[in-house]
Amino acid sequence: MINRGEFAVELCQQAGQLALSFFNDPANLAVEVKGAQDWVSEADKAVEDFIRQKISNAFPGDGIVGEEFGSASGSSGFDWVIDPIDGTTNFVNGIPAWTVVLAGVSGGRTQLGVIHDPNADETFAAIRGHGATLNAVRLRMGTDVSLDSGTVAVGYSNRVARTNILPVLTALVERGTMFHRNASGALSIAYVAAGRLLGYLEEHMNAWDCLAGQLLVEEAGGRAEDQDASEMIRAGGRVVVAAPQVFAELVEIADGAWRAP
Amino acid sequence: MINRGEFAVELCQQAGQLALSFFNDPANLAVEVKGAQDWVSEADKAVEDFIRQKISNAFPGDGIVGEEFGSASGSSGFDWVIDPIDGTTNFVNGIPAWTVVLAGVSGGRTQLGVIHDPNADETFAAIRGHGATLNAVRLRMGTDVSLDSGTVAVGYSNRVARTNILPVLTALVERGTMFHRNASGALSIAYVAAGRLLGYLEEHMNAWDCLAGQLLVEEAGGRAEDQDASEMIRAGGRVVVAAPQVFAELVEIADGAWRAP
Repeated sequence: MINRGEFAVELCQQAGQLALSFFNDPANLAVEVKGAQDWVSEADKAVEDFIRQKISNAFPGDGIVGEEFGSASGSSGFDWVIDPIDGTTNFVNGIPAWTVVLAGVSGGRTQLGVIHDPNADETFAAIRGHGATLNAVRLRMGTDVSLDSGTVAVGYSNRVARTNILPVLTALVERGTMFHRNASGALSIAYVAAGRLLGYLEEHMNAWDCLAGQLLVEEAGGRAEDQDASEMIRAGGRVVVAAPQVFAELVEIADGAWRAP
Repeated sequence: MINRGEFAVELCQQAGQLALSFFNDPANLAVEVKGAQDWVSEADKAVEDFIRQKISNAFPGDGIVGEEFGSASGSSGFDWVIDPIDGTTNFVNGIPAWTVVLAGVSGGRTQLGVIHDPNADETFAAIRGHGATLNAVRLRMGTDVSLDSGTVAVGYSNRVARTNILPVLTALVERGTMFHRNASGALSIAYVAAGRLLGYLEEHMNAWDCLAGQLLVEEAGGRAEDQDASEMIRAGGRVVVAAPQVFAELVEIADGAWRAP
C-alpha cells in the first residue's frame, strides 16, 4: 500500500500541474454545462485521462472509477477513484480553490487518499493505519475545540433539494458556529483533517469527492461517519466528518435535517 | 491620485510579504480573542504598524484609520483606511484566504482601493475614474449573468444578530443561486469585481473591510450601494455589490432581511 501511496501523491502533483496549465489560460478553456449549476471543462477531462493512463501503466490490474469517464473494472481487487478537479465551478470562474483527488479502495474500505491543492502547493495524504500528512508532515487534530469557537463547512449540489441545506445552516448559526462554503468539498474536508475547520457536512457526495477526505480525517485523529466504500462508489451518500469533540453534535444536526446514512 | 495609487499597490504587496512571514510560521504566532468568534494576531498589529509608518513617511499630512490602532487625523483632507489582514480567522487557522486592504478617501468618497492576496499573488486595484485592474490587467465585468447560474457570497459577524443571515441564504437558495462564504469579505468582493462571483451581501461591514472593494466593483463596471465614505468610517454599514444584471435582485433580498442602508 505504501508504494501505491507514494505513487498517488506524485500522480496528484503531476495532475495538478496539468490542471494549472489550463487554469492559467482561461480564455482558451472550453466549458460545458452538465446540469443546473454543474459544469465540466476540458481540463476535467484531460486531467482524468492523464491520471487513468498513468494508473493503467503502473498498475494494469487495478480498477478505475472517475467522475468524467465512468468505471473500468480490474482484476487485482484494488480500485482507484478519481476526481480530476474537485471544485470545477471555482476552476471555471478563476477562483483558486480546487483540488485533484485520488482514493484507493479494496475490501470495501478506503486504503489511501490524496487531496492536492496546486494553488497553495499543499498535498494532504493518508494511508489507512499509517496516519495523515500535509506536505509529508504528520497531521494531528487538536483536542481543545467547541462549536461556538470555530467554523464548520457545508456543501450542497443539484443532486439534492437545495433548500435541505437551510436547516443545517440554521442549526450551526444558532449554536454560535460560523459556516464556510468554498465550493470544493474535498478541500474543505482536507482542512478539517488539518484542524483548520471543525467539521464538514453534506447531504450527498459522490465517492470521488469524499473517500480520500474521510480517510484523511480519521487518520489525523478525527471522526467520519462510517461508510462502505463500495456502496459509496455505487450510489454516493451522506458525509459528516469532524474533530472528535464536535462530531456527535454535527451528526445530530445532520440527522435533524437529512436522512441517516 | 495616480501617485498615491501606485504607492498603495506597492505598499500592500510589501505588507503582504510581511504578513506571509507570520502566516508561514504559525507555531510562533500570538493570537488574542477580541470577542466571540473574533480574533486578532500579532501579525495584524505588525502589518498595520508597518503600513502606518510607510504612509506617515510618504504622505505626512494624510490622516490614517486602521482596524487595530484607531484614527490619526491629518491636514491634507486625504485619509487612508487600513485593514492589515482581512480574514483574520482564516489567517490564524492556516487557511490561505486572507488579504491586505487599503483605501484612500477624500471629500466623503473613496478615491482609491487596493486588495492584495499574497497567497495567490493577486493585486486588485482601482482609482476612481481610472478603472480597476488585477495584476495591472484591466477588469471588465461580464454582462451575461443571472442569479440561477452563478454564486453570491455572503458575510456575517458578531456585530449583528447572526441569525439575520438566514433569510438571505434562504432567498438565494430558493432562487437557484449557490452561496459562498470564505470568511474574507474583501477577497469575496474583489472576486465580484473580477467576475468570479455574481455579488456580495453583508448586513454590516466596517470601512476598512469594504471601501476598497466597493470602488473596485464600480470601476470594473459593476454596482455598489451608494455609501458616504466618511459615514462608513464613523459607523460602518450595509454592503451590497454585484454585477449590474443582478444588483437590483440582491438589493431586494437585502431589503427583505435587513434595514436599508
